[in-house]
Amino acid sequence: MVDIHSAIASLDWSKEPQGLYAPIAYTLRAGGKRLRPQLALTACRMFGGREEDALPAALALEVFHNFTLLHDDVMDHAEVRRGRETVHVRWNENTSILSGDQMMIEAYRLLSQVPADKLHKTLRWFNEMATEICEGQQYDVDFEQREDVRLEEYIEMIRLKTSVLLANALRTGAYIAGAPDEAQQAIYDCGIHLGLAFQIQDDLLDVYGDPKTFGKAIGGDICCNKKTYLLLTARDRADEVQRTRLAEWLKHAPGKEKIAGMTALYDEIGVRGIAEQAIAQHTAEALGLLDTLPQNEATDFLRQLANKLENRTS
Amino acid sequence: MVDIHSAIASLDWSKEPQGLYAPIAYTLRAGGKRLRPQLALTACRMFGGREEDALPAALALEVFHNFTLLHDDVMDHAEVRRGRETVHVRWNENTSILSGDQMMIEAYRLLSQVPADKLHKTLRWFNEMATEICEGQQYDVDFEQREDVRLEEYIEMIRLKTSVLLANALRTGAYIAGAPDEAQQAIYDCGIHLGLAFQIQDDLLDVYGDPKTFGKAIGGDICCNKKTYLLLTARDRADEVQRTRLAEWLKHAPGKEKIAGMTALYDEIGVRGIAEQAIAQHTAEALGLLDTLPQNEATDFLRQLANKLENRTS
Repeated sequence: MVDIHSAIASLDWSKEPQGLYAPIAYTLRAGGKRLRPQLALTACRMFGGREEDALPAALALEVFHNFTLLHDDVMDHAEVRRGRETVHVRWNENTSILSGDQMMIEAYRLLSQVPADKLHKTLRWFNEMATEICEGQQYDVDFEQREDVRLEEYIEMIRLKTSVLLANALRTGAYIAGAPDEAQQAIYDCGIHLGLAFQIQDDLLDVYGDPKTFGKAIGGDICCNKKTYLLLTARDRADEVQRTRLAEWLKHAPGKEKIAGMTALYDEIGVRGIAEQAIAQHTAEALGLLDTLPQNEATDFLRQLANKLENRTS
Repeated sequence: MVDIHSAIASLDWSKEPQGLYAPIAYTLRAGGKRLRPQLALTACRMFGGREEDALPAALALEVFHNFTLLHDDVMDHAEVRRGRETVHVRWNENTSILSGDQMMIEAYRLLSQVPADKLHKTLRWFNEMATEICEGQQYDVDFEQREDVRLEEYIEMIRLKTSVLLANALRTGAYIAGAPDEAQQAIYDCGIHLGLAFQIQDDLLDVYGDPKTFGKAIGGDICCNKKTYLLLTARDRADEVQRTRLAEWLKHAPGKEKIAGMTALYDEIGVRGIAEQAIAQHTAEALGLLDTLPQNEATDFLRQLANKLENRTS
């Protein structure tokens, strides 16, 4: 079996100019769950493919994902990622832009190494996915300026920004292994649901996570009035009195008091339970789709992963 | 014959979210010489290929080139491009980053439409070229912090940053038309020389250009002590007295006085003549390589282009 962690670690960034490549090494060696390449390799195994054939695409997806983090961190002015300084803090913004660009190119370089007869479709899907991720990021930005964001719009945004990458990882692995078309679609849809569950969980952890295990500060989304699943649900479910209080907390300056006040309001409206239910539902949908696919250790692995993501604390 | 200007104009950017796509339309509709796609189509014609087959790669190269301008303008804090506000001035930096990213993806999407049997090599070359351009940009940044940049290093930097894109446009067009390997190499090398001539000319125009036709302010490179072909040549050729005066002008605050002083010193050292000679030499090399290739209207077109670039004023 391919060890994705050592495969990523063995990518060579020692070349010149180091001003370009050192930040890439720094980013890719920060660890992380390597969820996306794992999904690609697991889907490949599920359909009896050779993991080596899916490895270039798996690596491409991980490098691309990390590229998006680099540029997103600049755009969001994020200072910490995986417990370390972000690249634009450690170096500068120009470095994040240029090394990020180079990471996208590296992703395409890796992708071009998939078996030749699979290249065309793999590349087309990758391009569609990459575009959808940029569109999702743009909607995320747009939503900051809008007060009328509907919950369905938010779901569509996180589908684009988070889900399509997981879905495409699964579909690409399955396709490279020679899975039938309907199975490719089913595993893609499975990834969409996993991604939605993952992102709603992310929103939940921002408020209800354990600061010791979460890795980021609790309440970050609350402080910047980010329109998360929790906030949009609270707004939709609040009664008139609660809505007035919500509006007041939104005007409140960032800080401990605001976090405590908003959390208490979320508790009162029952937002946590609603979010947990949505996560459980998307996880169930994903598991249901897995039942329609070949049953083997790979399918079991994805089941465990789905359950682990549902109960994750970081 | 394919009209590259209308082919670029007909790319559709009316889709949502407009926050992502409007800056791309703005960038690609700013005009410009469309030099890179012209090179790809011309090389294709030279070897009897169908221009339609080379069009996706030609468009990909133009979109990629414009992507690099978008990100470079952010990194350089440039405010004007082709006589209009740059994207980060008209919108903001985050827009330049994200719409730029999407342009790179669009370039790959266009590239994936080249004839299937030509995709693998075209993609591999494109990736190599894209990486070299990023490396060139990084060296350009690195050189700002270094006082010991050698002229050869500068030439290597502009080869990466400017030449490989022209060279790859020519090679890709020739390859898609079915040109023999040696001809692909010759036309690539021709592009390298054209690019070096182009960039040295750019350095020259910054000082000796006509502000009415140049489109940018004269003396921009002088004001920021940019290590151009002119400055590095001046430093290498200056006698001891001139070197002291050069060092003083470099410490001088940006402005009219500095531009006039440095230009007078360049005149005295004879930098203009040396640069013009280098441009003529690279143009001659390019023309010599064209003589080894099939002789037809496409070859003539490239000859005219080489001469036009040598004598360009903008």
